[in-house]
Amino acid sequence: MDIRIIKAPSTGTLRIIQRRLSSMELEDIHDFGAVGLLQGKIMDMLYAADIAEKTADVCVEDIRGNCPTTMTTLAIFGSVEAVEIAIQEIRKSGKEDGR
Amino acid sequence: MDIRIIKAPSTGTLRIIQRRLSSMELEDIHDFGAVGLLQGKIMDMLYAADIAEKTADVCVEDIRGNCPTTMTTLAIFGSVEAVEIAIQEIRKSGKEDGR
Amino acid sequence: MDIRIIKAPSTGTLRIIQRRLSSMELEDIHDFGAVGLLQGKIMDMLYAADIAEKTADVCVEDIRGNCPTTMTTLAIFGSVEAVEIAIQEIRKSGKEDGR
Amino acid sequence: MDIRIIKAPSTGTLRIIQRRLSSMELEDIHDFGAVGLLQGKIMDMLYAADIAEKTADVCVEDIRGNCPTTMTTLAIFGSVEAVEIAIQEIRKSGKEDGR
Amino acid sequence: MDIRIIKAPSTGTLRIIQRRLSSMELEDIHDFGAVGLLQGKIMDMLYAADIAEKTADVCVEDIRGNCPTTMTTLAIFGSVEAVEIAIQEIRKSGKEDGR
Amino acid sequence: MDIRIIKAPSTGTLRIIQRRLSSMELEDIHDFGAVGLLQGKIMDMLYAADIAEKTADVCVEDIRGNCPTTMTTLAIFGSVEAVEIAIQEIRKSGKEDGR
Repeated sequence: MDIRIIKAPSTGTLRIIQRRLSSMELEDIHDFGAVGLLQGKIMDMLYAADIAEKTADVCVEDIRGNCPTTMTTLAIFGSVEAVEIAIQEIRKSGKEDGR
Repeated sequence: MDIRIIKAPSTGTLRIIQRRLSSMELEDIHDFGAVGLLQGKIMDMLYAADIAEKTADVCVEDIRGNCPTTMTTLAIFGSVEAVEIAIQEIRKSGKEDGR
Repeated sequence: MDIRIIKAPSTGTLRIIQRRLSSMELEDIHDFGAVGLLQGKIMDMLYAADIAEKTADVCVEDIRGNCPTTMTTLAIFGSVEAVEIAIQEIRKSGKEDGR
Repeated sequence: MDIRIIKAPSTGTLRIIQRRLSSMELEDIHDFGAVGLLQGKIMDMLYAADIAEKTADVCVEDIRGNCPTTMTTLAIFGSVEAVEIAIQEIRKSGKEDGR
Repeated sequence: MDIRIIKAPSTGTLRIIQRRLSSMELEDIHDFGAVGLLQGKIMDMLYAADIAEKTADVCVEDIRGNCPTTMTTLAIFGSVEAVEIAIQEIRKSGKEDGR
Repeated sequence: MDIRIIKAPSTGTLRIIQRRLSSMELEDIHDFGAVGLLQGKIMDMLYAADIAEKTADVCVEDIRGNCPTTMTTLAIFGSVEAVEIAIQEIRKSGKEDGR
């Protein structure tokens, strides 16, 4: 599972992300201090989304194209601290699973 | 075949799953205590769906994007117990097949 | 070429298959006693479909997503006996070709 | 490049092929005695289509899903003899290219 | 990068190409004496398109399906000479890059 | 991560790029002196987009087909100098990450 955190994302980066969010529920993603990006198999992303939301004050959403065959990228929005805590917990769970 | 069980899935996780269900027949997936996720070849997923429904009180559905080339992920909804029984039986059948 | 036979398929399994049939000509697939599933390259699937229909009293159809790049899965509907005869003939032809 | 010839294709096979033809110009493919199937890279298929049409009295068409990323399969319709001549010429050209 | 030149393309070949052109700007591709086909990564195709247009009197266009994930094939239309000059220059540039 | 810079892109190259831009915000890409192209995993492209915009006076956009499964190619528009500075910074960050 590949993981990256972008702190205070730039305008163009947010525009690309915004357009690729599957849900319209997160209307303004500019309010978040950071976005964590995870890439992997769809079921591992769903599992990570569940851990993230249960661990920290973050919003989870999948980033996609118009026509995704599999959900490859999960975005975790929140403050820098919240995103870091969520991702720490996801990494820990990955190690316990031996993945 | 990869398998994962998410118990009492979080709101965001259910929102991502809900949006990706192929069928609208399962309108409220919040009532289920657990969701089992299986990932593999479409024909193995169909085979597993058949075993799950014949073994335990669960609902099967495929999770997809807008444009799936192959059904990669199967969701099995039910109580924690029912999902665990269904997945046990699927694992057993996989071993018998030598897969 | 991967092959599987599902006998007396469960309701959920048939619902997933039904939704993924390319043609609407087979309106009620619940009447068939079995469904044979083959997965492989599109031209091998077309070749197998031809053998199946020429060998036994079966209906052939391709299973797909909304947006298939290649026809990966062929469904052969019929009685348990008919499906087994068709698949036997397909296997035999595969051996003759050395595939 | 994979090649197969189906002689006097069965009804179900023709129905699957018909639905996947890119062009509606070939309205009735039941009149042809055989269909040759080639699978490979899009540019090799275009090259083969050109050879087939210049060599024998055949019609070429690409077989696709709703959403092909690359043209993977070329169909060559004609009499059994014409299709065999066209495919022979394609094979020969492939050997000359050292492909 | 794979390269092929089709001289005086046949009717069926042009029909398949025409249908797959991304742009409608090239309305009649029958006027060109040759078509050069290149297949590779989207950014290498864009780079090649740029070289082709700067080198010879050719038109560049990408060939696609309904739903391309990446532009895999570039078509270079022009006289036989112009297409050959353009492709020579692309090959040379590829060698300089060590690709 | 693959990187290429096209200086003063030709008309046909720009037409292909323009048609594949995800956003309509960049209406006239002919004003830019250069376009940098990056190809890789969607999360690495988002990360690179963020670096580019924070480093130099450039516009970032993803290039896609009608139906992208993953954002494979990022375009960075700007003057030749700005694009080169942005790409230098992206390369440097890649080395620090050990990617």
